[in-house]
Amino acid sequence: MLADEKVREFLKSVCTSSPTPGGGSVAALCGALSASLSAMVCNLTIGKDKYKDVRKEMERVLADSSRLVERLTELIDEDAEAYESVIASLRLPKETDEEKEKRMEAMQSAFRRAIAVPYEVMELSLEAMRLAHTVARKGNEGAVSDSGSGAMMAFAALHAASMNVRINLKEIMDKEFMEDVEGKLRKMEEEADILRSDVIMEVESKL
Amino acid sequence: MLADEKVREFLKSVCTSSPTPGGGSVAALCGALSASLSAMVCNLTIGKDKYKDVRKEMERVLADSSRLVERLTELIDEDAEAYESVIASLRLPKETDEEKEKRMEAMQSAFRRAIAVPYEVMELSLEAMRLAHTVARKGNEGAVSDSGSGAMMAFAALHAASMNVRINLKEIMDKEFMEDVEGKLRKMEEEADILRSDVIMEVESKL
Repeated sequence: MLADEKVREFLKSVCTSSPTPGGGSVAALCGALSASLSAMVCNLTIGKDKYKDVRKEMERVLADSSRLVERLTELIDEDAEAYESVIASLRLPKETDEEKEKRMEAMQSAFRRAIAVPYEVMELSLEAMRLAHTVARKGNEGAVSDSGSGAMMAFAALHAASMNVRINLKEIMDKEFMEDVEGKLRKMEEEADILRSDVIMEVESKL
Repeated sequence: MLADEKVREFLKSVCTSSPTPGGGSVAALCGALSASLSAMVCNLTIGKDKYKDVRKEMERVLADSSRLVERLTELIDEDAEAYESVIASLRLPKETDEEKEKRMEAMQSAFRRAIAVPYEVMELSLEAMRLAHTVARKGNEGAVSDSGSGAMMAFAALHAASMNVRINLKEIMDKEFMEDVEGKLRKMEEEADILRSDVIMEVESKL
């Protein structure tokens, strides 16, 4: 599994001409880095007398962050697997009409999977941005640069994942599905933009 | 070394209440992820007949990206070391006047180091954004979402590193130095904003 590679090996795996791991796996990792930073800020807040009023909230954020780290780590591999299914479907035989139809069906199903994975990365990265926003506002002020860094990581993860949804969305023949997804992407990007401004204002007021 | 940890272990190391590795190390890793994606796009471009006119340029970008991956990987650890020196300086004895002066000098020197490391991460991330811009414009179009993802990673790395410079800059007593650095940060952030818009336009036109 990619998450079991050493950091420097993972970076090397990205560099090679093999298309996996690529932008989708990197987006998932970047989302996981964001949630890890929020978890760290929670751990630097919980138990400190100055922050006793937000203890319960920080415990909830910690639990949510930990769940996000775990799932986003799985998605590093799932993105690579989804893309490999796309490649496999493209290589299916296409001589007879029956083969052509089978190949087309396999391709559509593989592309839908290659959309579903970065789409989930977007949803979880948006959640990670909300958690980073909470820890920037209420968590340990000495770690506010970590909260802000976490928000930036989730912002990048969301946008990188969005590009990976869109490049695969082009291949989908169901126009209604395409438009539905496109609308949802735009909504998530809008919320992410607002959250980024809010977190930056919060961090700058404390720096 | 942090770069020798498995990806999932590195994420766990971030989560703990130990302040290192924190936002600074994550920023360096995120910059390295950006340069890795640009290197991948170069490797998916070089040798392809369709892109023979840009071969030389892609080879240069590949060499630059590889250098950035290497240096940014070192900076993951250097950021943690710099922060640990800050902690060590804060723990120095401060009973006598002589001890106080020694402690102050050690702190100023430790904070300058804790500024220099994320400052270098910012410079290299800006360079990584320029490389991502080039591969988005001239590299393999089938990998344009990877070029765009790389640009987003470098953008987040630059901003996260910037927050880490600023939180340490507050502790510097030399006001001239502070203002000089602050001016340079703002310039880099402005260039990063322009590059991000340019890359997003480029990617969207090809998606």
